[in-house]
Amino acid sequence: MEMKRALEGVKVLDFTQVYSGPYATMLLADLGAEVIKVEAMNVGDQTRNFAPIKDGISGYFNYLNRNKRSITLNLKSPEGRQAALDLLDLAKWADVVIENFSAGTIGKLGLGYEDIKKVNPNVVFASLSGFGQYGPYKERLAYDAVAQAMGGLTALSGPPEKSVKVTPAISDAITGIHMAFGVMTALFHKERTGQGQLVDVAMMDSVFSILEGSIVVRSLMGRNPKRMGNCSEIAVPYDVYPCKDGEICIACASDSTFNKFAKVMKREDLITDPLYCTNPVRIENRDGIDLIIKEWCSTRTKAEITETCVAAKVPVAPIMTVDDLMTDPHVAAREMLIEMEDPDLGKIKYAGNPIKLSETPAQFLLRAPRLGENTDEVLSKIIGYSEDKIAEMRANQAI
Amino acid sequence: MEMKRALEGVKVLDFTQVYSGPYATMLLADLGAEVIKVEAMNVGDQTRNFAPIKDGISGYFNYLNRNKRSITLNLKSPEGRQAALDLLDLAKWADVVIENFSAGTIGKLGLGYEDIKKVNPNVVFASLSGFGQYGPYKERLAYDAVAQAMGGLTALSGPPEKSVKVTPAISDAITGIHMAFGVMTALFHKERTGQGQLVDVAMMDSVFSILEGSIVVRSLMGRNPKRMGNCSEIAVPYDVYPCKDGEICIACASDSTFNKFAKVMKREDLITDPLYCTNPVRIENRDGIDLIIKEWCSTRTKAEITETCVAAKVPVAPIMTVDDLMTDPHVAAREMLIEMEDPDLGKIKYAGNPIKLSETPAQFLLRAPRLGENTDEVLSKIIGYSEDKIAEMRANQAI
Repeated sequence: MEMKRALEGVKVLDFTQVYSGPYATMLLADLGAEVIKVEAMNVGDQTRNFAPIKDGISGYFNYLNRNKRSITLNLKSPEGRQAALDLLDLAKWADVVIENFSAGTIGKLGLGYEDIKKVNPNVVFASLSGFGQYGPYKERLAYDAVAQAMGGLTALSGPPEKSVKVTPAISDAITGIHMAFGVMTALFHKERTGQGQLVDVAMMDSVFSILEGSIVVRSLMGRNPKRMGNCSEIAVPYDVYPCKDGEICIACASDSTFNKFAKVMKREDLITDPLYCTNPVRIENRDGIDLIIKEWCSTRTKAEITETCVAAKVPVAPIMTVDDLMTDPHVAAREMLIEMEDPDLGKIKYAGNPIKLSETPAQFLLRAPRLGENTDEVLSKIIGYSEDKIAEMRANQAI
Repeated sequence: MEMKRALEGVKVLDFTQVYSGPYATMLLADLGAEVIKVEAMNVGDQTRNFAPIKDGISGYFNYLNRNKRSITLNLKSPEGRQAALDLLDLAKWADVVIENFSAGTIGKLGLGYEDIKKVNPNVVFASLSGFGQYGPYKERLAYDAVAQAMGGLTALSGPPEKSVKVTPAISDAITGIHMAFGVMTALFHKERTGQGQLVDVAMMDSVFSILEGSIVVRSLMGRNPKRMGNCSEIAVPYDVYPCKDGEICIACASDSTFNKFAKVMKREDLITDPLYCTNPVRIENRDGIDLIIKEWCSTRTKAEITETCVAAKVPVAPIMTVDDLMTDPHVAAREMLIEMEDPDLGKIKYAGNPIKLSETPAQFLLRAPRLGENTDEVLSKIIGYSEDKIAEMRANQAI
């Protein structure tokens, strides 16, 4: 028996591309939403050309677009405008229309919130962009590096002496998750009241929102938060230390944890040492305690340190690379590595879905579609176009 | 007239503390959920002692716990066990119970999913933890630095020569957003089918899930993704450059953008220069083009470069500090800085809510509660206890 899915019957018309929007609709699709991805004819989502590419197929695209179907439409020619009109038939079908063009662009295609509302008054219209649908920067262009910088994350990342952004495009992911939450909130409200609305989520806002206490440090204390690198302003030892075969993070956020760690090192003397006995004195004597820990770590492996600290309830972590994670037993047990079959690439591993629902778990039923693979199926089965009409659209280069 | 809120009537019993769980319930509370925060008697959420602190009040706590109410209960003494039984009355009231103890702990208090289900069979029970409710690492302790390291983010952050984690505790935030989405998905399913369930979201999974294409790079190409610092493996120029008064990010992800930027620099010659005319040759001659851009930037300010690049549609961003963001007109226009009044601290600014809903916007109605401020109100108004019963509980040190 097929398992019930949480978002069974939720219909999403998806104009997004690259990372932020596709991450949001991947979360929805994994949990059962029916996502139809609309791509520009002959071109498609930009990530179809993103590395890693093998045999002409992008693994990047395949990761983010599983569980979705693809239709292609010509939006820019006169025939395309006809296609846009036809698209309004799909928009009637949708509970959610989602897009991540720069602000205002989709309106110019005749597919903005105001256009869609005319045919589907209660639609949830989700616009994801660099700077949002209003505000002085709304027309600026953003890539991930721009959003990390503008939202304040770059300034707080990297070592103390130099700000360095994060390599993966995490501002896209953070915005995508916020959007998935915003869409579900709007859908819940629509389910209860019948009312649709615009959900506007911006990359700059989303990054700004995850700076922890940084804003209130500034507003309450009048000072900028510090970039701390691997260590902590308020707890010692809480840092990354070199060890025999790599690096290891040891995080003692309280005196009781430090005492446990001192026992792990067989240095119970530190527990009563006036230089190291409490967190405030350890902060003052940071260099001294760091030296002791470095020496202890230098003769031990990541695995040895992890094992003894875990046993003693001291928070610890080897610095895990992607290579390490591919064979990690916990990643496997959590189904965070899934394998999907592609007709050209064979079986490939992808990151799974981090939302674990006991009764309606994420499922991975459809590999990512080839460009326009589902155009005919969607037009005929979902909006009921005849074969003749579809053939005519194709002859007119509308699809 | 009071504006309708999207999550009006959604009842959340919130056992979470510190950052991940409180961020999730802050997102819910801002959009209208009724959140009752349960805190340990005389102790409370650990962040009540987190910097920044002024006049004994934590700005950190105040930021994350707006729009919530606080009740305190004695969970650990024999009287506390009585309180736990009473708590089951509150659990009957709740649509959502959310907790972020380490795995298994809440069950020992008699308040686990199995316990709550007995009195509220359709509850959405949300467990947020370092490593999740199952898997070999489930009992390990995690702080943010541990989760950044274990999930693979630390190894991909910082300059190429040295991995460095992000200063703000973003693995907490990322987990909190995933959880907010998971809770709404489960609530939507409950609204349609009546069925509740367990939502299990882990910090390690959540971090692993936002590594962009890293996993598929490894599985498809057999190599570890590289840590790139501020630049990009696949596009040049896409980097951070020093300028007259700071640093600026310039992100040319396509040849057409590079051509626009060459015109901004009044270096149209670069557009046809065989060393720089296309992205592949620019990747080969990265040092050369970087030198040209550095020289150009060195005589200009962040504001000058931003203005000319924005006008030319070249993605650009000054590296914004929190100080810069406090007076940024876009942050203000997007309501990303809100001001709330605290009886002791006066008016303080906090980060706003990044989900912009046109019909049911976020509202900031209640300042963060003092420890146990709403105990009597919640017990009498929500679960209907008499004044006598409440007095008896207090005499027994249960509240």
